[in-house]
Amino acid sequence: MLVTHPPDVRYLTGFTGSNAAVIVPARPSAKHRPILFTDGRYTQQAKQQVRGTAVVIAQTSVVREACAWILERKIATCAFDAEHTTVAALDAMRRWIPSRHRRNFFRPVRSLIAELREIKDAGEIGKMRAAARLGCELFEGLLPRIEAGKKEVEIAADLEFAARMAGAEAMSFETIVAGGIRSAMPHGVASNQRLPRRGFVVLDFGVLLDGYCSDMTRTIHLSPATRTERQAYEAVLEAQQAAVAAVRPGVTCGDVDEAARSVLRRAKLADHFTHSTGHGVGLEIHEGPRIAARQQQELQSGMVITIEPGVYLPGRFGIRIEDMVLVTPNGGEILTPATRAWIEL
Amino acid sequence: MLVTHPPDVRYLTGFTGSNAAVIVPARPSAKHRPILFTDGRYTQQAKQQVRGTAVVIAQTSVVREACAWILERKIATCAFDAEHTTVAALDAMRRWIPSRHRRNFFRPVRSLIAELREIKDAGEIGKMRAAARLGCELFEGLLPRIEAGKKEVEIAADLEFAARMAGAEAMSFETIVAGGIRSAMPHGVASNQRLPRRGFVVLDFGVLLDGYCSDMTRTIHLSPATRTERQAYEAVLEAQQAAVAAVRPGVTCGDVDEAARSVLRRAKLADHFTHSTGHGVGLEIHEGPRIAARQQQELQSGMVITIEPGVYLPGRFGIRIEDMVLVTPNGGEILTPATRAWIEL
Repeated sequence: MLVTHPPDVRYLTGFTGSNAAVIVPARPSAKHRPILFTDGRYTQQAKQQVRGTAVVIAQTSVVREACAWILERKIATCAFDAEHTTVAALDAMRRWIPSRHRRNFFRPVRSLIAELREIKDAGEIGKMRAAARLGCELFEGLLPRIEAGKKEVEIAADLEFAARMAGAEAMSFETIVAGGIRSAMPHGVASNQRLPRRGFVVLDFGVLLDGYCSDMTRTIHLSPATRTERQAYEAVLEAQQAAVAAVRPGVTCGDVDEAARSVLRRAKLADHFTHSTGHGVGLEIHEGPRIAARQQQELQSGMVITIEPGVYLPGRFGIRIEDMVLVTPNGGEILTPATRAWIEL
Repeated sequence: MLVTHPPDVRYLTGFTGSNAAVIVPARPSAKHRPILFTDGRYTQQAKQQVRGTAVVIAQTSVVREACAWILERKIATCAFDAEHTTVAALDAMRRWIPSRHRRNFFRPVRSLIAELREIKDAGEIGKMRAAARLGCELFEGLLPRIEAGKKEVEIAADLEFAARMAGAEAMSFETIVAGGIRSAMPHGVASNQRLPRRGFVVLDFGVLLDGYCSDMTRTIHLSPATRTERQAYEAVLEAQQAAVAAVRPGVTCGDVDEAARSVLRRAKLADHFTHSTGHGVGLEIHEGPRIAARQQQELQSGMVITIEPGVYLPGRFGIRIEDMVLVTPNGGEILTPATRAWIEL
């Protein structure tokens, strides 16, 4: 199989450069090992990062040289990732194969590496724990600095600076800071708007630490809340905790989604819960499995997923609470323990 | 034509949401206008951002509903972007077309919108000027805070905080701060390493401002330099200025590359200039044209490109100097005027 999607390359070999292709033999062995192709910019870096995989520094295109390597060994067929190979890239690959070998040479496969990546090993879980823990520390450090009148982007800049100083390579996605009626936007990335004197503030953010993403959301309230606001918060929290409690190996993703959704249905808020309950997370911020209605995929020990129900009342307010949860042999372990209790500043 | 690549969608319609498809009629007119398909999360946002394009809120997949729209109008063929459509996505699109219409329904085209995007209009040039100017201001603000002993990531965090506070949505790519022997890595993203008492520091960074990317590199020196270091710097600067001076409509990209490369050849440093001279920049950090050896594409007025030769001596030091240059009717205009003179801190 030819692998070119950078997070898959990193997963298989440890290499983090921007230009690489990996050939994975059908039956890897001491004699038939994976081979990484990259370019001259990364000679040093490949030496440092890659163990157990041979490295070839390509003089032309990495994919082209990978294809040549396959042909030289008289291998008749090569799988490629249909989800991450463009029509144009496949076309170019085909042109590098002599016409007499071209027919059926490349075979599309889907999600093969992505499925492996859904189950995290001990080393990965350690890194995700560290990323999640840093996220919680950043939230706790940020709390005393959230106040009415500050711009949302100032809050985001503050958080991102602290993340960088604590060793994060980057944020794992565009930071969401959404105050007042902007909290009703599920994707309210930090804007130039100032935080209101009164109302919710949704903070949804993550760090990239040692290659792995964290992802968490907390919603706090500025000034005393109305009874409706408080009740909606308690309903979202109850929904979130019900879904977390539903996590264990063998349960379907649809059942976890339903655990959250049914609580909001009873609170007559289900119509305002307009997205799915969560997603896998790892080297990429969105991975499998999808925690959504009717998803038949079963959770397995070693998966790391988010549980993030929310309600959004346009023109009024929005609330979302999100944790990262590791699926353990017996249930689920929250990796983001920062308080979910009502916070009024 | 069906357009789904987000920067292309933004370019054509102004819409910035994460999920959209645009149908562009073969001959747009008042009667046959482009149509944007997005989902319910973006109802408000599409209303605010989109002018001159009808908006459809899809209940299922945006591409699926776009295909249905085409079929209803008895249109027999639809172009798609082979460079940004995966093999799996094309496969899904085909299955949505009834088999009797399927043959030759989808036709691959390449770089159609990308080519339009290479030439910036006045509005875009204004935004790129502002992004480039902000980059220069950030560099000047950062200079007094660069000192031996600080970690590279601290310098990056400082720069990124200032960028956010000045209104940048994000950095346009992972910030490079590479000190001492790390400066010899062309892609030395800021690490936990501390800046050395003596040596070069390469700073390569950009902001995303109002959707448009800036990109610039400056190399400064901590403590007095050796004669070799100083000579190498002057050679890179001369190469960079020669390439900038070569910019004008009608010149090939290969000629601009050669202008830089020939200076470094005379200085016996060409073997250490291991990448191409530059690239187009705009809504994305890497766009056409490619400013590389033997590229026959001609520059045109309205293009914005980077000119960024560098030399890298493994284990010793590296130097790169980069500006953004607007191709004008008569030559090239530097958008990043921050000093390129020798800086010793």
